[in-house]
Amino acid sequence: MSEHIVSSYDQDLEDLRRQIAEMGGVAEKMMADATVALVRRDTGLAEKVIASDKRLDVLQREIEERSVLLIARRQPLAIDLRETISGIRVSGDLERIGDLAKNIAKRVVAIADQTQPQKIVLGVEHMSDLVQEQLKDVLDAYASRNLDAAHDVWERDGQIDALYNSLFRELLTYMMEDPRNISFCTHLLFCAKNVERIGDHTTNIAETIHYLVTGETLAGERPKNDASNYATVTPGA
Amino acid sequence: MSEHIVSSYDQDLEDLRRQIAEMGGVAEKMMADATVALVRRDTGLAEKVIASDKRLDVLQREIEERSVLLIARRQPLAIDLRETISGIRVSGDLERIGDLAKNIAKRVVAIADQTQPQKIVLGVEHMSDLVQEQLKDVLDAYASRNLDAAHDVWERDGQIDALYNSLFRELLTYMMEDPRNISFCTHLLFCAKNVERIGDHTTNIAETIHYLVTGETLAGERPKNDASNYATVTPGA
Repeated sequence: MSEHIVSSYDQDLEDLRRQIAEMGGVAEKMMADATVALVRRDTGLAEKVIASDKRLDVLQREIEERSVLLIARRQPLAIDLRETISGIRVSGDLERIGDLAKNIAKRVVAIADQTQPQKIVLGVEHMSDLVQEQLKDVLDAYASRNLDAAHDVWERDGQIDALYNSLFRELLTYMMEDPRNISFCTHLLFCAKNVERIGDHTTNIAETIHYLVTGETLAGERPKNDASNYATVTPGA
Repeated sequence: MSEHIVSSYDQDLEDLRRQIAEMGGVAEKMMADATVALVRRDTGLAEKVIASDKRLDVLQREIEERSVLLIARRQPLAIDLRETISGIRVSGDLERIGDLAKNIAKRVVAIADQTQPQKIVLGVEHMSDLVQEQLKDVLDAYASRNLDAAHDVWERDGQIDALYNSLFRELLTYMMEDPRNISFCTHLLFCAKNVERIGDHTTNIAETIHYLVTGETLAGERPKNDASNYATVTPGA
């Protein structure tokens, strides 16, 4: 970190970092709670997740406004400019992660009184556990400016996509086996898709860390393995 | 628009406006083409939509970088600062709209060889037509700084959500009627969800216009009518 003559500038950057850390904490908790609520069909916990989203929206707006004022007032260069831009980007991703966790929580409310076998939910839980680990790792990497750790998260996105793809087929198969599973499994499909997209936002944050540390855009295609957009399943096949 | 002593500053803002108009044009075309491709199961057109998305990504990155440099170099105040921030926000929404249209196009490829009744697709087409109109109106409102037109778009988001909600139930019913519809209808469900989310981004742009023109955040809850997160359908009910 470079040193500044104007110490209140350091304070501004410090505030920005603190607010992003707070957003990260809220987003992590929302995702963990949404997953527990889904597994236990706990509508009370789901409602708490839905309520938490407001805080994330407020924080994102604040970060965006403060960052822009910071840029306008201080005219930061190089690493400091990148840090401010990165703050805007990361807060955008964390806000979206909160939205997606909130959407999972809303679906928990929808399916709360359904009694489908728990096994179906466990695939989504497993996928969510992996993505939560990714999110934790990428937030740590952001706080410590750890490029290797960020690259590691970036590489792992393909695993999540492959898992989503297999879960997509599995859920379609359950739906074909018994029409009573359709409504439930449709909500689970959207939950799984939300988890997969949270994984994408985690990968975005990894790319932002790369930009923050190196000043360059991460080259190359993402290690995508999501073929579910192209997948179909045939009944009885 | 305020007048500037430094005329190259006006040029910078003009460039920003032009790039956003270009992004808007690309996003509109992607959405229109993705919808036609879906209705006609035209995989060639779908592939074109998928390819267009790269241009949108490049433009968004450019707008973001140029806007931030503009803020750092020129220290704009009031309306000019808001215009630059608005440019960043709108380009982010247009980039997401392109992603969602691309996702519809990918699903067209998945369901191209399926022969389900065309009627099922028409509901998604109708919803897409409405959202395309919203997108056109909001881009016009942005270009002309027309606050009334922006508010009108903002108010109409509830209609789209209500339509999505009824389509969601309809698609679930088709799935329950015949398991051979499940794979196809699942892709259509995701297409409809994508269209609904494009509607959300259109509403975001309307909110940005409000901020751009008035300097204030649009107060009040969005006119949401999307109950589908909470919806379930029972077979034979």
